[in-house]
Amino acid sequence: MREKPAAGRILLSITGMYPQRWYEMLSKARSVVLEPEGEEDPTIEYAVVWKQKRGVLKRLPNLKVIFSAGAGVDHLLADAELPDVPIVRVVAENLAQHMVEYISWRVLDHHRQGITYRAQQAQKIWHEPPQPPANEVSVGIMGLGELGGAAAKALLALGFKVNGWSRREKRVEGVSTFHGRDGLTPFLNATDILVVLLPLTSVTEGVVDFSVLERLRRDGRLGGPCLVNAGRGRLQKEADILRALDEGVLKEASLDVFEQEPLDPKSPLWTHPRVFVTPHAAATSDATHLVPLMLEQIEAFERGEPLKNVVDRAAGY
Amino acid sequence: MREKPAAGRILLSITGMYPQRWYEMLSKARSVVLEPEGEEDPTIEYAVVWKQKRGVLKRLPNLKVIFSAGAGVDHLLADAELPDVPIVRVVAENLAQHMVEYISWRVLDHHRQGITYRAQQAQKIWHEPPQPPANEVSVGIMGLGELGGAAAKALLALGFKVNGWSRREKRVEGVSTFHGRDGLTPFLNATDILVVLLPLTSVTEGVVDFSVLERLRRDGRLGGPCLVNAGRGRLQKEADILRALDEGVLKEASLDVFEQEPLDPKSPLWTHPRVFVTPHAAATSDATHLVPLMLEQIEAFERGEPLKNVVDRAAGY
Repeated sequence: MREKPAAGRILLSITGMYPQRWYEMLSKARSVVLEPEGEEDPTIEYAVVWKQKRGVLKRLPNLKVIFSAGAGVDHLLADAELPDVPIVRVVAENLAQHMVEYISWRVLDHHRQGITYRAQQAQKIWHEPPQPPANEVSVGIMGLGELGGAAAKALLALGFKVNGWSRREKRVEGVSTFHGRDGLTPFLNATDILVVLLPLTSVTEGVVDFSVLERLRRDGRLGGPCLVNAGRGRLQKEADILRALDEGVLKEASLDVFEQEPLDPKSPLWTHPRVFVTPHAAATSDATHLVPLMLEQIEAFERGEPLKNVVDRAAGY
Repeated sequence: MREKPAAGRILLSITGMYPQRWYEMLSKARSVVLEPEGEEDPTIEYAVVWKQKRGVLKRLPNLKVIFSAGAGVDHLLADAELPDVPIVRVVAENLAQHMVEYISWRVLDHHRQGITYRAQQAQKIWHEPPQPPANEVSVGIMGLGELGGAAAKALLALGFKVNGWSRREKRVEGVSTFHGRDGLTPFLNATDILVVLLPLTSVTEGVVDFSVLERLRRDGRLGGPCLVNAGRGRLQKEADILRALDEGVLKEASLDVFEQEPLDPKSPLWTHPRVFVTPHAAATSDATHLVPLMLEQIEAFERGEPLKNVVDRAAGY
């Protein structure tokens, strides 16, 4: 067997998920150094990271590209000593597929009154509440990136009306789009089920607060607005969500992400009868699908081709 | 105001749902007689029925067409004194839309492990079980009529693999189709989530029994097969479903229909932790959407055009 070249080695620095599969997959093509090894190693040119140890990337003298092992990069940008090399966010088709499944599932469960039916079943009640068809329900997606766009397409195919909001103006076929600060109120006023898929930045932190929930449409045919957050936990203010649920401003919520994860056993969200909790599992980064995309980019980069999906650090995504 | 013509009146004979909305909608265009009035009335040429009183249709001397107020016609054909006139089954886009919502919702809830996550939440467990993507899960639809075809299309769009089984050979784009007695075992062997949308006939009664459930794929990535019945309750043997659940043959079930409706409070299905019960609410016939389609057909019929969606009495659907 031929020795792998010493140049172009990869540092793998992953916390909060198991690195084993990443190590196996990357090792098939490249020499991989598992952090905490590899400190100041001049042969390391690439890093694959998730919630990396602070400062570790800065001490690599020949680092050329950083790859994020998940769609969000807030975990990466939180490192004040992050070196000035391109950060690539790899979004596998698989990740978008999983997110589409989760969003469609949660929107349908709110629309088709899963919480009501499960409560009725527990009491052996045979009763059919009024049921609007999907085309009389508007789903509003905050964040029209790759995941938001894929979710919009799936919801349209299921028959829902879809609104979309983004920071900058975007057009998505079949979607009524709104943007910027001025577009937020009309977007919320026209929305029955709010789906949050924004990136976490200094601008979006805490955006899902009482004032946002209060502006959702309350005279829609669902009997009250619903919230689905599959973006980042720190986009939401959990105290405000609980208040909105209890004051009749919000009917139900599906939360996959939380201000602190794992969710504190003392959080009232766990036991609220109108909240559905999943453990940041909407769309997990999967080494099997992401590693081949990273290796393709490394090879293209070494042939002198431009990198794809480079993060805009100023925007934060 | 001009008097409505005496010819071409409509008998409305509906039990088991509220006739009021049907009466209002039909009366806008035609003179409507509400059963038990109209017995032996020679001016009645059409009947709109749901679970009609036995024998009432036979005594109408000039009846020309019977319209079923729902997609299934077993309720109609059960009348031994049914006169020999065409029976038209009107399927509103709305009905198919509601069915697509219900099927997508239930398939996603089984696929994305709703029962597991709700049980975890009740115990405040933060844990992510392995999650196959939709394209590694096969949904098998029994019954490829208008509703089955629409469900297949929606499931394909969500990323699932879709198998279809029908009595006679059918082709549906993107669906692996099987047919007849010989096709049943290979169809079941390749299916993780079985969706039942068959019409109820003397041939299909009780078809969803232990021997069918036992042939579903048990080594799929879902950890066991699941059942969704949104067709008719008498297609299933509930004792067999319970046995299959308890013997590990079946993982979970979503049942919208039952051998006897409303479901008996003593049925163990109500309290089974892996069964989701809804009160025959998957897709309700809605006068608002169906009446215009019936009136269109009456007008076309009076112009001498052929009727659409005429029931084949020998086949029973």
